[in-house]
Amino acid sequence: MDKERLRQQFAFFKEIDKEKEIFRQTYLADASRKENDAEHAWHMAIMTVLLSEYANEEIDVLKTVTMLLIHDIVEIDAGDTYAYDPEGKKTQEERERKAADRIFHLLPDDQADKMYALWEEFEAQQTPEAIFARTMDNIQPMMLNDASNGLSWDEHQVKLSQILKRNERTAKGSEQIWEYAKEEFLQKNIQAGHIIEDN
Amino acid sequence: MDKERLRQQFAFFKEIDKEKEIFRQTYLADASRKENDAEHAWHMAIMTVLLSEYANEEIDVLKTVTMLLIHDIVEIDAGDTYAYDPEGKKTQEERERKAADRIFHLLPDDQADKMYALWEEFEAQQTPEAIFARTMDNIQPMMLNDASNGLSWDEHQVKLSQILKRNERTAKGSEQIWEYAKEEFLQKNIQAGHIIEDN
Repeated sequence: MDKERLRQQFAFFKEIDKEKEIFRQTYLADASRKENDAEHAWHMAIMTVLLSEYANEEIDVLKTVTMLLIHDIVEIDAGDTYAYDPEGKKTQEERERKAADRIFHLLPDDQADKMYALWEEFEAQQTPEAIFARTMDNIQPMMLNDASNGLSWDEHQVKLSQILKRNERTAKGSEQIWEYAKEEFLQKNIQAGHIIEDN
Repeated sequence: MDKERLRQQFAFFKEIDKEKEIFRQTYLADASRKENDAEHAWHMAIMTVLLSEYANEEIDVLKTVTMLLIHDIVEIDAGDTYAYDPEGKKTQEERERKAADRIFHLLPDDQADKMYALWEEFEAQQTPEAIFARTMDNIQPMMLNDASNGLSWDEHQVKLSQILKRNERTAKGSEQIWEYAKEEFLQKNIQAGHIIEDN
């Protein structure tokens, strides 16, 4: 048994437990409370397995799932930056890079390098896997915002132009999912007044 | 766009959101509250990616991860049955089968059949993937029980014989992980009095 290697791996598993206490702006479907990063990642991982058939380009599903499972771990140190918070966005990159450095390097070097690279790949948004992962990262909260009657959109008085800007790459991962989301989630909530139509 | 297929898939994603409100007997590492099924599944999925190198037999990692992501979905209807609750255990199988039938069949038939089969494969414990998944399902709460100073073991006055019975298949997935867990999690908590040594 390679005890030192296992010890490093379990130190990482224990550390990332903190992701369960980082809350997002999205409410659960029944609007009872906000969801946390671990729940968000679990939800997107299942969605990826079942929706990869709609990816514009073929994707490696395990790689995409792993990317989504780990991509918010940086928020343990850096906190959640709300999608529509321009001030937070400015310092987000530096805060998250420091966090990735510290947390992934709890792992043995070979695995730390792999996980760090996967996180960077997600951030760089160049590969089919990273692009599809971003699509999931945008669609999952949109689905929950719709299910919870637009509560989070209402609270932040979100405008359609903000959502379209945030989602300018969503169709790059999957045209079909983006078409569906526009019809089923956005149009409905514009009509219901939960999204402010500004253009 | 195959709107009807997408509608079925998103009905499933919305339904499984309820897994975030099914709480287990395990506490988070910092003992602040109990963890829920979605968080548990997320944690085990990452552990599987990083610990598959210790599997006794080679495993298909994506299949194992998917199995772990979905295997507790039945608890949305059937509830969480505590590992050391003999009364609950008696009716667990029937309650969970009904739940699997209802929930997986929200999906399009082909995907429903696949997810149902994967859930059955986990339950049957015959394939390397199912056996390794069970190892994760046993080790993840053990790690958290240790991290939270044995709080859940204390509350339920758990005996070593119960833990060994519960874990009689853990080594089948990975001898190395089981050796590590015995040394790092069990022995330590027996000495600290959080696990009652009864044999």
